[in-house]
Amino acid sequence: MYPESLKNLIESFKLLPGIGEKTAERLAFYLINEDIEKTDFFANSIKEAKEKIKRCSICNSITDKDICDICNNNLRTKEVLCIVEDPKSIFLFEKIGTYNGEYHVINGLISPLEGIDPDDIGLEKLIKRINSSNFQEIIIAVKPSIEGETTALYIKKIIEGMNIKVTRIASGIPIGTDIEYIDTMTLERALNDRKEIE
Amino acid sequence: MYPESLKNLIESFKLLPGIGEKTAERLAFYLINEDIEKTDFFANSIKEAKEKIKRCSICNSITDKDICDICNNNLRTKEVLCIVEDPKSIFLFEKIGTYNGEYHVINGLISPLEGIDPDDIGLEKLIKRINSSNFQEIIIAVKPSIEGETTALYIKKIIEGMNIKVTRIASGIPIGTDIEYIDTMTLERALNDRKEIE
Repeated sequence: MYPESLKNLIESFKLLPGIGEKTAERLAFYLINEDIEKTDFFANSIKEAKEKIKRCSICNSITDKDICDICNNNLRTKEVLCIVEDPKSIFLFEKIGTYNGEYHVINGLISPLEGIDPDDIGLEKLIKRINSSNFQEIIIAVKPSIEGETTALYIKKIIEGMNIKVTRIASGIPIGTDIEYIDTMTLERALNDRKEIE
Repeated sequence: MYPESLKNLIESFKLLPGIGEKTAERLAFYLINEDIEKTDFFANSIKEAKEKIKRCSICNSITDKDICDICNNNLRTKEVLCIVEDPKSIFLFEKIGTYNGEYHVINGLISPLEGIDPDDIGLEKLIKRINSSNFQEIIIAVKPSIEGETTALYIKKIIEGMNIKVTRIASGIPIGTDIEYIDTMTLERALNDRKEIE
């Protein structure tokens, strides 16, 4: 019913997460009414991002260079490594602006239920990197979940005996959230991880 | 902080209505992880839709031909014209599947407050079309609002004496909606436009 090219544009938007038929239609109708400069910018941005963005050969973050800006930055401390489960987490941590160490992106989390083994998430590369570096602390900053815990414990275990402190970021109640909305697991963790007020 | 090409992709998504920084980031990160086939399809769809889609020379709907499929369809009755305020409305009416007449898209609604005059919304072209056609009924299917009413009354007035029935689509309470959520204007209209149960 729609012209073919509009239909394709709607289908394109439907490729995106959380965008259904109605939203896709709305976005497509909106976009075809925009100036050609904007639509060209949009189309070219997609192509260029896909062409240019690759994984950093050291930390697996996304970058348009061989080695990302963070790995290349000699002003950052080479003694702390923060392990995250996707590149986006790095940009979130960088927005805080207080962490000055290195990062390493593992490819997801270990999940025996879904058949995701330690091999699948690139732990070999991580271990190699740790072996050839001088990290004093490794911060595990993955999602607090069964899979996150499993992955954290696994990493902790394989670097045991290397005299590196392994920490994980705190879990608990998000700031500003009423306790009544918090699930039991989080509440239990918040209770167990309570800190003395100093 | 983000690689340049990723930044551009995020900015592109932010061009879209209802998409802020966070959603744009999420969509951009999602898209660069998709296959090149999908991202190319997306980019090309934007370019093609913008290149190929134009306005139907008769009804102003969007089409990739000179005259849209509806205007070109001789199986549709040429006696009823439905006036809508944007091309999208046509596709919504067509989804119902029961209307078999013609359409005409006016370019928005008359709004003295915003300085939008009858000239601005292309009524001249509409009148020309009506004059050279044989419509028995004109259905005004624009948004029920002050501007919608003004536009409807204006159209009604200029075709007065042409022996064409002018109707407007019904306003009232959407099916399945509790009356307590309905604004006073809609409720008043629903009351005034009440129909006898037969």
